Amino acid sequence: MKMVEIYDTTLRDGTQGEGVSLSSLDKIKIAQRLDKFGVTYIEGGWPGSNPKDMEFFKEIKRLHLKKAKIAAFGSTRRGKTNTKEDFNIKALLDSKTEVVTIFGKTWDLHVKDALRVSLEENLKMIYDSIAYIKSRGRYVIYDAEHYFDGFKANREYALRTLEAADEAGAEMLVLCETNGGTLPGEISEIIKTTKSVVPAKYGIHTHNDSGLGVANTVIAVELGCTHVQGTMNGFGERCGNADLCSIIPILQLKLGCRCVSDKNLRTLTELSHFISEVANVVPAKNVPFVGDSAFAHKGGIHVDAVMKNIKTYEHIEPELVGNRRRVLLSDLSGKSNIKYKTSEMGLELEMDPIQLKELAHDIKILEHKGYLYEDAEGSFELLVRKKQGTMKNFFDLEGFRLIIEKRQENEEPFSEATIKLKVNDVTEHTAAEGDGPVNALDNALRKALEKFYPNLKKMHLTDYKVRVLDGKEGTLAKVRVHIESSDKEQTWSTVGVSENIIEASWQALVDSINYHLIKDKQTKKKKKQ
Amino acid sequence: MKMVEIYDTTLRDGTQGEGVSLSSLDKIKIAQRLDKFGVTYIEGGWPGSNPKDMEFFKEIKRLHLKKAKIAAFGSTRRGKTNTKEDFNIKALLDSKTEVVTIFGKTWDLHVKDALRVSLEENLKMIYDSIAYIKSRGRYVIYDAEHYFDGFKANREYALRTLEAADEAGAEMLVLCETNGGTLPGEISEIIKTTKSVVPAKYGIHTHNDSGLGVANTVIAVELGCTHVQGTMNGFGERCGNADLCSIIPILQLKLGCRCVSDKNLRTLTELSHFISEVANVVPAKNVPFVGDSAFAHKGGIHVDAVMKNIKTYEHIEPELVGNRRRVLLSDLSGKSNIKYKTSEMGLELEMDPIQLKELAHDIKILEHKGYLYEDAEGSFELLVRKKQGTMKNFFDLEGFRLIIEKRQENEEPFSEATIKLKVNDVTEHTAAEGDGPVNALDNALRKALEKFYPNLKKMHLTDYKVRVLDGKEGTLAKVRVHIESSDKEQTWSTVGVSENIIEASWQALVDSINYHLIKDKQTKKKKKQ
Repeated sequence: MKMVEIYDTTLRDGTQGEGVSLSSLDKIKIAQRLDKFGVTYIEGGWPGSNPKDMEFFKEIKRLHLKKAKIAAFGSTRRGKTNTKEDFNIKALLDSKTEVVTIFGKTWDLHVKDALRVSLEENLKMIYDSIAYIKSRGRYVIYDAEHYFDGFKANREYALRTLEAADEAGAEMLVLCETNGGTLPGEISEIIKTTKSVVPAKYGIHTHNDSGLGVANTVIAVELGCTHVQGTMNGFGERCGNADLCSIIPILQLKLGCRCVSDKNLRTLTELSHFISEVANVVPAKNVPFVGDSAFAHKGGIHVDAVMKNIKTYEHIEPELVGNRRRVLLSDLSGKSNIKYKTSEMGLELEMDPIQLKELAHDIKILEHKGYLYEDAEGSFELLVRKKQGTMKNFFDLEGFRLIIEKRQENEEPFSEATIKLKVNDVTEHTAAEGDGPVNALDNALRKALEKFYPNLKKMHLTDYKVRVLDGKEGTLAKVRVHIESSDKEQTWSTVGVSENIIEASWQALVDSINYHLIKDKQTKKKKKQ
Repeated sequence: MKMVEIYDTTLRDGTQGEGVSLSSLDKIKIAQRLDKFGVTYIEGGWPGSNPKDMEFFKEIKRLHLKKAKIAAFGSTRRGKTNTKEDFNIKALLDSKTEVVTIFGKTWDLHVKDALRVSLEENLKMIYDSIAYIKSRGRYVIYDAEHYFDGFKANREYALRTLEAADEAGAEMLVLCETNGGTLPGEISEIIKTTKSVVPAKYGIHTHNDSGLGVANTVIAVELGCTHVQGTMNGFGERCGNADLCSIIPILQLKLGCRCVSDKNLRTLTELSHFISEVANVVPAKNVPFVGDSAFAHKGGIHVDAVMKNIKTYEHIEPELVGNRRRVLLSDLSGKSNIKYKTSEMGLELEMDPIQLKELAHDIKILEHKGYLYEDAEGSFELLVRKKQGTMKNFFDLEGFRLIIEKRQENEEPFSEATIKLKVNDVTEHTAAEGDGPVNALDNALRKALEKFYPNLKKMHLTDYKVRVLDGKEGTLAKVRVHIESSDKEQTWSTVGVSENIIEASWQALVDSINYHLIKDKQTKKKKKQ
């Protein structure tokens, strides 16, 4: 079995992505998870360019990772300086990592236009930097920046930069497709030639500017590269780095390579979502392997076929990467999808064919209004229960009023909600404040209901999302609110839609509480039996 | 120059994507734009599976497209039926399109498990369906579903299905990588063998389940396929179809093929955004070629190098696909980015080095709080003006109060805003209603200010977005509101952040109005000169 080293640069190259920003503490959290997952290297940062990365290197050393080696990243010494006194080289050594990754220039254009030194001086800069850091006992990886563009512009010079790095003792030569514009055919030809002229251990580092980041990496591994650099979720500058969440499963499940254990591979989806969450990036749904839609079936014919034999429309078993199959409710689908969905949720569907047809029709109309049940299974269950008559009415709203008042330009507004409702003919009229209008409303509703349903204290809202549905009318637009709630046992999602954000939030709040009350009642019933 | 036909299936396969839903009218709008862009074929729908698609075929015929041919999509006849009487074949002919695309089964597994007919019967179904539709004067394209999986499972049978289609007179044989699990190396080997055994005109149709949709298509074209099927923005079931927004620029700019005119290629980004908007899908930022981040530079070293020579970190000129270079403001960057940004905005930066340093520091703190200036250039300009002392104070808020009241469960709440403010020591105290709290506040603020600034009538809000920043605390979470506004001359964006959605919206609203008032003042000044 071919071993392939995974070199994760989410913490360095990944943070160059638009909207990605990680604190030192975030970086520590991610590094610990990457270690647990089993990557070989974690590139922690560029100490010469970003002084706050030093904090990370110091802290991570104390934590004694199990498997992963921490790498510090930096450029060669600058032109005409003494290597030992170069600021960047010093910072790399001061970060005290076991591994140092040095990047150097391959492309003559960059040497002339960006570095502004002679071609010969650049070769010396590469050689000196690697040799010196090696002499200080570090394991050195060499990143040949812009390797493929450099090769296309001046093949002989590009190869000489690799020779310089190899002679200086670099343990791994990494061919970097920095601008992301090289096609698979070129990648393949260039790697073959390079390996025949400069025999060494090779790695690959690609970017996704042409949508080819994953393909170019896979091709390089097929040609003998044993070290892969990339980022989780493909975070990175412009269109991102090669996405390790695609590359690792391809190498391991399709090419028979070994990157991490099969057991850990089953945690890939969770890891991907964890990293998105820490980075505060909404995970894309339609991404390969780990996306929520990656194994979601919508077309009726596909749902039908998958129910007969899953191989018909799935290239791997979703569980191998910790993902799951989903059947979507949508206006493209019909009664069979509702049946599949309810059975998947363990919900008994006590409904005659006419009711079922009506329900399918109702869902179509609601989806047309903007409700989305694909990720609001709580609200979906309540719809089914209402239709089949197994929904209990836990309270009746008599009304609520929200007041938001701002008295000075630099002061946060004050939010207060009053609510009046009835439970079994007992009226409750109460008020509460909150940090915002929805929070105040949530507080008031709970305050009114907890007297009757004390177990409500066990549940809390864990996520609140707002999506503007039709942006083109400004503040008049319709919004969809999506709420996630949990108690100790489970998590559920609900949805609300209105032109009024308070009304949309109210609908999702009420569904969330009703769902909890139903489940709570079922639990009590079971305990009694 | 090699001509490659673009076969767009956004309207059919694209709508299988999660969250993508198009009405007949939406489909017409998109088809007209695709025609203008210059694709060869537009697949309009599957008349046999979705009766509402008939409406589209009828309507589009009346519109006389300039270049694109409309294709109707459907399966071969069912097993053991008479071709002429087959429901699906009838529906295809009834749609009266010039082109009919028939898909048939290649994979013996599917023939047995999904169709449940004999292998020989499937060959007949392919032959009969194509031959009959040809005899009715249609141009027939044959989609060999699951071709690559079928080839791997039973090569001889897969090839025989192609032969059947070829003998029946199909004008183009399209090899479909339906499950998206095949690697570039396999694609390449299978296409070579196929072409040598069954010489014909070939097309390619791939999916993105392994992140290889674009690569597999590009490889197929390099091997001689002259017809490419895909969707705009890569919409489609699971991880989507091959993304034409990447494929077209690669073929045309990197492989020297001709798909559309160079002039039309320069409208690709606009087309991509238009289709996202009609489909009500938020465009992903980091997608190749057409994404907002595709040519966005964040790292200081990259910004520096790109300012020296754009080829250093860009694989193509963004203008070739109608996109643009952006320099991002972020905590990774510094004073040089602010300078670049202000000069890009045509804003004079009258600031001494100390002020500039302070501004960079302020931006870091605000971004840490959740403000994002990357796409809120209006708010950014106001920050710069405040720092350099060129910001005028147009009004002083004395206070506002918002009341949202709901009196019945099935009634939309009522929203009213009162506001008190001062302009040049004149107090204005007024009230307005709205369809939601933010709309009411917007209405009240304008009502109070229009008396003093009548040109405010010319501006209106065009987009309102809400992003929950830290989801894990439920309704207590911090939100970022992003508002886009325009008048006749220009469009600008502003941002607000708070735990209170009303406060965040207020900040963005006030910035938006202030920005307009400044621009309005400048225009008046110019006219006077």
